[in-house]
Amino acid sequence: MNDRFLRACRRQPVDATPVWFMRQAGRYMKEYRALRERHSMLDLCRTPELAVEVTLQPIRRFPLDAAIIFSDLLLPLQPLGLPFDFFKGDGPRVERPIRSEADIDALSPIEPREALAHVLEAIRLTKRELDGRVPLIGFTGAPFTLASYAIEGGHSTQYAHTKALMYGNPAAWHRLCALFAETAADYLLAQVEAGADVVQLFDSWVGVLSPADYREFVLPHCRHIFDRLKPSGAPAIHFGTGTATLLPLLAEAGGEVIGADWRIPLDDAWALIGPERAIQGNLDPTLLLAPTGRLVAAADDVLRRAGGRPGHIFNLGHGILPGTSVEAVEVLANHVHAFKAAGSGTGLGHQP
Amino acid sequence: MNDRFLRACRRQPVDATPVWFMRQAGRYMKEYRALRERHSMLDLCRTPELAVEVTLQPIRRFPLDAAIIFSDLLLPLQPLGLPFDFFKGDGPRVERPIRSEADIDALSPIEPREALAHVLEAIRLTKRELDGRVPLIGFTGAPFTLASYAIEGGHSTQYAHTKALMYGNPAAWHRLCALFAETAADYLLAQVEAGADVVQLFDSWVGVLSPADYREFVLPHCRHIFDRLKPSGAPAIHFGTGTATLLPLLAEAGGEVIGADWRIPLDDAWALIGPERAIQGNLDPTLLLAPTGRLVAAADDVLRRAGGRPGHIFNLGHGILPGTSVEAVEVLANHVHAFKAAGSGTGLGHQP
Repeated sequence: MNDRFLRACRRQPVDATPVWFMRQAGRYMKEYRALRERHSMLDLCRTPELAVEVTLQPIRRFPLDAAIIFSDLLLPLQPLGLPFDFFKGDGPRVERPIRSEADIDALSPIEPREALAHVLEAIRLTKRELDGRVPLIGFTGAPFTLASYAIEGGHSTQYAHTKALMYGNPAAWHRLCALFAETAADYLLAQVEAGADVVQLFDSWVGVLSPADYREFVLPHCRHIFDRLKPSGAPAIHFGTGTATLLPLLAEAGGEVIGADWRIPLDDAWALIGPERAIQGNLDPTLLLAPTGRLVAAADDVLRRAGGRPGHIFNLGHGILPGTSVEAVEVLANHVHAFKAAGSGTGLGHQP
Repeated sequence: MNDRFLRACRRQPVDATPVWFMRQAGRYMKEYRALRERHSMLDLCRTPELAVEVTLQPIRRFPLDAAIIFSDLLLPLQPLGLPFDFFKGDGPRVERPIRSEADIDALSPIEPREALAHVLEAIRLTKRELDGRVPLIGFTGAPFTLASYAIEGGHSTQYAHTKALMYGNPAAWHRLCALFAETAADYLLAQVEAGADVVQLFDSWVGVLSPADYREFVLPHCRHIFDRLKPSGAPAIHFGTGTATLLPLLAEAGGEVIGADWRIPLDDAWALIGPERAIQGNLDPTLLLAPTGRLVAAADDVLRRAGGRPGHIFNLGHGILPGTSVEAVEVLANHVHAFKAAGSGTGLGHQP
C-alpha cells in the first residue's frame, strides 16, 4: 500500500509529501456530474454502490495518497430526528430547525451501526475495491458544526440563532452537543471497524467563535470524541476553517493531525499546534482557479513552510470549488509529489 | 462636546471608555422600522433629511459617544457604473457584476462631491442637529470589499469570482482597486470637509484573504487611501472582520485606529497592531442576544484586556443584529461607561 499518508499522520518520514483534497469527489469532475444527473446528492450518499463509485472517481484520475468515503457530514442528523435535504445553490436545508429546549429533548440517540449502515457498507466495499492502493478516510461533522446546521436550518453568516441558544440556555446546548459527540464517536469508531484507516472530524464553521466561547461550548465535546477514538489506533484529523486563534484549543481537544486554512501561514499554524502534532493544509482552494504559475508558486510556499518536517499532509484549506478544472488538480498533485525541500538532500525527511 | 471618542482615537486619557456600535441605527429599533415601512433602504441613504433622522435615532435613545452617518458602504458603486439595490433577506445585489477586464475598463472615475452630494449634505445637516453633542463618523467601503460585491454581485461565501479575477488578471484587479481607492479617498476627504470628525474604512470581508494575498492585492490600495487622508487631520479607523492574521498588515496600511473582531482577544490584537495605534472592538454582536449576566461579563473581559490604556474605543466586532433588543444595547452602553479598570484608581487612564 501507498502509506505516505498514514506515515505522515504519525509524523514518520516519507518519500514525498502525501496529498489529498477535501471534496476531491465532486462537481468539478464530469464523471461526478454525469452521476448527479441521474441521482440526488442524498441518493449518492445512501446507496453504497454509488458512494463507492464516486469515492473512486478521483482516485482513478489523480495520483492522490488517500481516498475519502463519499458522504456528507450532516448524515447523522436525519436518524437523530432532523431530516434535511440539499437544494441547488442553497446548500442543505433542515426541515424543522431546532429553536427550543423542547426541540432538543425530542431528539433520540441512535446506533450508527444500524442508522448509518449504508455508509459502513460503502466503506467495506470501497476498501475491497481499493485493494490496498491508498488508505481510506472516514468522517463526520463535529458537534458545533452539526448544531449550527440543526439550529439555523442551513448555511448561516451570523449564527445568531445558534449563539443565542448557546448563550441563553447553556445546559440545553451542552445536552445537544453531548448527543452529537456521542453519536460522532460511535459513528467514527464504526467507520474504523468497517475499514476506515483514518477519520476526520469536520468542524467547518467553528471559526465564528471566540477562543473563550470555543473553550466553554465546544472543546469538552470534541475532546470526548477524540478520547473515545484513541483506543482504536486510527489517526484522527481535526479540521476547521477560520481557526487562526483557535488552533491551540483544537489541538488541546485532540486529533493526531490538525487542519489549518490559508488565513494563517502553515509554519505559524504548526507552531501554534506544537511539534507533536501532524498538520494538514493549507492552500486556498481558489488558487486552483488561478494560472498555473501562481498555483504552483503558492503550493511551493506551503511546502517550504512545512520545511520537509515529517508530519505534513498537503491539502486545501477547504473543499475543491465546483468551477475547478481537473487539469489544475492534476498539476497540483503532481507538483506536491515532485517538490524537494531545500537542504533536505534527496527529499523530505527521506524514508530510509 | 463629549470628546471621549476623539480623545481615544488620539490615544489621550479619557474619563470613561467611549462606546458606539456599528449599525447602531437599524432594524432593531422600532423608530427605524417605522421609517423603513415607508422608504426603501436606498431612499433613506439618498434623502439627506431621512439619513439625518436615522443617524440621530440611536443618539437620542442611548448614551453613545459618537454618531455615524446613516449610509451604505456600497454607495460609490452606482455612480461608478455599477447600479445595485437591496433585497430582503438577500442583501445587496449588483445588476451587472464585473466579470471581465472590459467590465472594469467601462467604469469611469467620479467626483464624490457631485455624485454623492446627498451624503455630504446629510453630514452637514447632522452636524448642525448634533450641535456638538458627540462627534460624527463618516465612512465608505474599502477596495477589496467593494470589489468583492462588484464582482460576485452580492454576498459571497467563497469569493471565487473575486479571487479568480485577482489571481488571473492582477493588472486589471489593481486598476479596479486603484479606482476604488481614489474614489474612497476623495469621498472620505469630502466627508471630512462636510463635517465628519472621524472616518472609518470598512474592509468587512478582507478576512477571506491569506496574509500574502492581502499584502500583494490590497495593502497598497488601502495605504493610498490613508496616506491621502493624513493631511486632513481627521483620525481614520481601519476595520475588517476575520483579520486575526492580517492585523499587522492592516496597521501597516494605515489608520489611527484599527478595528478587531471577537475571534481574537483584544489584548492579543492590540499587541499585533502595536501600542502606537488605538484599537476599536471587539465584542461578538451575538452577545447582545445573550442574558444580561453573560453580556456584561463578556464586556468586562474586553474592558479588562484593554486594561485602562488610553486608545480603546468599545464597539462590537461587527454590526448590531436585527433581533437585538434596545434594552440590551442600553445596558451595554451604560456598563461600558461605568467600568473601572482594576488598579486604575479613579478610572481609565483618567483625564486630569
